[in-house]
Amino acid sequence: MTQPLPDAALDQLFRTARTYNAFTGEVSDETLQQLYGLLKFGPTEANTTPARIVFVKSDEAKAKLGPALSEGNYKKTMAAPCVAIVGYDMRFFDKLPVLFPHVDAKPWFEHRDDANLAWVANRNSSLQTAYLILAARALGLDCGPMTGFDNAKVDAAFFAGTSVRSSILVNLGQGDPASIFPRSPRLGFDEACQIL
Amino acid sequence: MTQPLPDAALDQLFRTARTYNAFTGEVSDETLQQLYGLLKFGPTEANTTPARIVFVKSDEAKAKLGPALSEGNYKKTMAAPCVAIVGYDMRFFDKLPVLFPHVDAKPWFEHRDDANLAWVANRNSSLQTAYLILAARALGLDCGPMTGFDNAKVDAAFFAGTSVRSSILVNLGQGDPASIFPRSPRLGFDEACQIL
Repeated sequence: MTQPLPDAALDQLFRTARTYNAFTGEVSDETLQQLYGLLKFGPTEANTTPARIVFVKSDEAKAKLGPALSEGNYKKTMAAPCVAIVGYDMRFFDKLPVLFPHVDAKPWFEHRDDANLAWVANRNSSLQTAYLILAARALGLDCGPMTGFDNAKVDAAFFAGTSVRSSILVNLGQGDPASIFPRSPRLGFDEACQIL
Repeated sequence: MTQPLPDAALDQLFRTARTYNAFTGEVSDETLQQLYGLLKFGPTEANTTPARIVFVKSDEAKAKLGPALSEGNYKKTMAAPCVAIVGYDMRFFDKLPVLFPHVDAKPWFEHRDDANLAWVANRNSSLQTAYLILAARALGLDCGPMTGFDNAKVDAAFFAGTSVRSSILVNLGQGDPASIFPRSPRLGFDEACQIL
């Protein structure tokens, strides 16, 4: 029987982990490879893995991202060592002959309408965004996820000519403890869950 | 600087963790409380936390779930010690005065149309489903997530008269190693990611 992780690990992943608004340090390309090397294993529907990620580190790429950010997200994001732009590929089904080799799963998706494909891609790329957040914390990084940005501007700046649409941004680095807000309440077990 | 978790923890969460099709053991109510006590801390947009979870353990509740399952998911799900039905509350904004106490965030959402609310709820409850999966693994449980079921039937059986809609099912227990399939390929870093 698999044992629970030690309390310190549960803290690092969930209980004392927080959303940071300021970061220090650098995020090396090697760390980003390690991050993807973990998050890629998280389960998705028919192994569709629709998430496509642009890791923004350079001043040039940040200059492209800046105009798309909401006012409250601009300064902290421009100052972050790395910003992950997580998008989803609307043509994720093109990869299924590789990703789901034992069955021809492409026909399950390819003739669906855009609204349904976007729904599936949103669901699965959001699972993958959470895998990214927890994989980052597992590697000792801190995160600042956000949705306050102009999706059309990000798509035009980073995904023009592709079938990828932006979904969520995640700032990455070593979190500055001075930058966190008091933790907001969570629903109690009985408000969010039932056991039947 | 926070240290990475040890390799054994990264394996348990991501690298050797697998989707199981058969389970042994029991999942106690206390374990489900611990599970929620971890997953609830995962970040969501404006702390909306729209996921609502029914943990199905009894024969009576399984009998209500059974008719909604696809043929390929029926037997394994009926045999699982516990099935988490993860849904999302379309009226998640009603909880924002509690969940986001420092700003009146309810008006940000309450007048949006159903399609937009469903999009936001899908995105955030999917993040929370991934937190559930990784929290379960962190507690030494194994998972079998799936979407192959009739959402309308699950909604009628478990969420009638509420604003909750079903999204994803996750079987939970001690995974039987004989029940896993060979791991399907993942996209390489350069197929899924860019560093700019």
